[in-house]
Amino acid sequence: MEVHKGLADVVVSETSLSAIVEGNLSYVGYNIDELVEKNVTFEEIVFLLWNLRMPTRKEYDQLCEDLHEHMALSESVVACLKIQCRQNLHPMSVLRTTVSLLGVFDPYAEDTDKRSVYIQAVSIQAKIPTIIAAFARLRRGLDPIAPRKDLSFVANFLYMMTGEEANPELIEAFNHVMVLHADHDLNASTFTARVAASTLTDVYSCITGAIGALKGPLHGGANERVFDMLSEISESDPIDVPGYLKKKLDNKEKIMGFGHRVYKTEDPRKKHLKRMAEQLSKDFGKEALYSLSCEVEEYLLKEKGLIPNVDFYSATVYHCFGIEHDLFTLLFAMSRVSGWLGHVFEQQREDTLIRPRSKYVGPTNLSYTPMDEEEHIGGDRK
Amino acid sequence: MEVHKGLADVVVSETSLSAIVEGNLSYVGYNIDELVEKNVTFEEIVFLLWNLRMPTRKEYDQLCEDLHEHMALSESVVACLKIQCRQNLHPMSVLRTTVSLLGVFDPYAEDTDKRSVYIQAVSIQAKIPTIIAAFARLRRGLDPIAPRKDLSFVANFLYMMTGEEANPELIEAFNHVMVLHADHDLNASTFTARVAASTLTDVYSCITGAIGALKGPLHGGANERVFDMLSEISESDPIDVPGYLKKKLDNKEKIMGFGHRVYKTEDPRKKHLKRMAEQLSKDFGKEALYSLSCEVEEYLLKEKGLIPNVDFYSATVYHCFGIEHDLFTLLFAMSRVSGWLGHVFEQQREDTLIRPRSKYVGPTNLSYTPMDEEEHIGGDRK
Repeated sequence: MEVHKGLADVVVSETSLSAIVEGNLSYVGYNIDELVEKNVTFEEIVFLLWNLRMPTRKEYDQLCEDLHEHMALSESVVACLKIQCRQNLHPMSVLRTTVSLLGVFDPYAEDTDKRSVYIQAVSIQAKIPTIIAAFARLRRGLDPIAPRKDLSFVANFLYMMTGEEANPELIEAFNHVMVLHADHDLNASTFTARVAASTLTDVYSCITGAIGALKGPLHGGANERVFDMLSEISESDPIDVPGYLKKKLDNKEKIMGFGHRVYKTEDPRKKHLKRMAEQLSKDFGKEALYSLSCEVEEYLLKEKGLIPNVDFYSATVYHCFGIEHDLFTLLFAMSRVSGWLGHVFEQQREDTLIRPRSKYVGPTNLSYTPMDEEEHIGGDRK
Repeated sequence: MEVHKGLADVVVSETSLSAIVEGNLSYVGYNIDELVEKNVTFEEIVFLLWNLRMPTRKEYDQLCEDLHEHMALSESVVACLKIQCRQNLHPMSVLRTTVSLLGVFDPYAEDTDKRSVYIQAVSIQAKIPTIIAAFARLRRGLDPIAPRKDLSFVANFLYMMTGEEANPELIEAFNHVMVLHADHDLNASTFTARVAASTLTDVYSCITGAIGALKGPLHGGANERVFDMLSEISESDPIDVPGYLKKKLDNKEKIMGFGHRVYKTEDPRKKHLKRMAEQLSKDFGKEALYSLSCEVEEYLLKEKGLIPNVDFYSATVYHCFGIEHDLFTLLFAMSRVSGWLGHVFEQQREDTLIRPRSKYVGPTNLSYTPMDEEEHIGGDRK
């Protein structure tokens, strides 16, 4: 009986969402390089991943209208968010809880017809930025800012964070980041969503589970930890990149933001993020952080042949946007939820319960003896 | 490239928790028949699934003390529960949200040392009955009842539901139900928990995801739907079991509570639940429901060779306990969380990211054209 630990290279599903072929990543047949270069909007990507084709102008306008329609949070959700803002709490846990709560308050959450499922998906996609911005403000003692119907998805998020309209260059860069993180084959959070979806549970359950999985340091939680590492290096005196990394490598510590199960060569998202990190770090006077990142990359490539993944330069990019580092993984979720939802739809169409087997390796044929009898005969099996 | 849809018969992990061999189910080497016959307590099973051996008296008393210590809900959790009680909401969504919320309020939720993880597990296991009972009362306009330190896990739950101590026969029967549902190889909710755990995310994320998966009608959500079916039959006039089922079968509708991916012969849990259903239905004057269940079982066996699974008779048993039918799946979760937690520990020890692949079957090498250009040349690809 062969045990496929980690399911490495085991093919679980067919998909029409994303493909990783020869080190290239494409969404429904469109190479991400082209999507970024041609400034395709995140809303177009959402449509693409949900419908497996690009929208017409009419369909696009309808999706944008639907997203605007569902961005606002109800009073009950804000009330629960406020209860979660009184301590130093982990933002990903708050996002997980609040998305789950959206399902509690959606009277149609159990409905499975196509229209209801679409509205559930729109509601989740539209509200995640509002939740993140509201939480980021509430915990600093500020009032949440309501979304505006005249701003794009990305512009709205940046506006709700600060109350000011972001400049067009920043919006364009943030849009690129959202596009680059939208989908990525059967990564662990997407797979979590699909396993849940295979029981025909509701959409909120699938996405709540996916957020919980993305939170893990071996997955989306890595970008936050990349920033922790860069901060640690830059705060040491004198700054000694080789010394810091050598010690980590000698201690066999995992270095966050490097290596990927799927890519043996460069992660196709990295070059875009590195370019953005370079530009943004100049615009926002964070050149030191960028050059530190480059130094880390060079050292690890030279010494260990390690290659940065999507999380490494996104940490610098998010920092330049002025986002607090414990919110980095939430931005990842805000984008990736578009892919999760596309995969949930695909899994619902596949209609096959995902239910693997295990190989039992424990003791067999034990006979039960009540604990007091056993103690009576001195049987502490510790 | 072979596609393992549903991962049927694909072995993903080694486990020492439960084994299904030749139609028998055992936990860490103890056959469930013996565990039920010898009235092993649910707390012993919790210890067994978390430590992979039975406890000594001292260890057992410590676990019981730890569980009692963590049963009470904080004011913040009760406040959020109250916000979720004002409508006709799905109880499994409330449980999913509230367990997620426990993680928000646990200041040690991100700690991964053995002691912290144990306390997280104890806290989740201990609080789920309190959450269920509090929710069941709050939505009926009643105050929650605080747990008592002198009652067992099962007795405490029944007490918190009503405010009265349950009689010993009922406690014994309920203990059996809890023992029978505790673990079951890599079912979809357990697998969800393990996929999440493989990213090294926190325990609350894993259990929140598992609750969401258990909610699905192809998984734990089935027991609630069994009761709906039995109610539907018994409310029709005249009662016509063969006619009702024939119509369902002719329409190719799935009949809940029958068939199982893993068992080709009888589910080893069924005989216990059927025996309990028979006894309890006599005690509580629900003989009609029990004989209706038997009639359904006989018809489906004779006509289609369909065999009841764990969900079929548990519906009758839960109903005899006086539990509202939309809480049935929550009772399943209250027991199964012991197994989920054991599997999370096992996955943490395995320390391998679960990250399968997909086979891309969508379009390739598409070139992006902006939507307005395309509309201009009449390109509605709908």
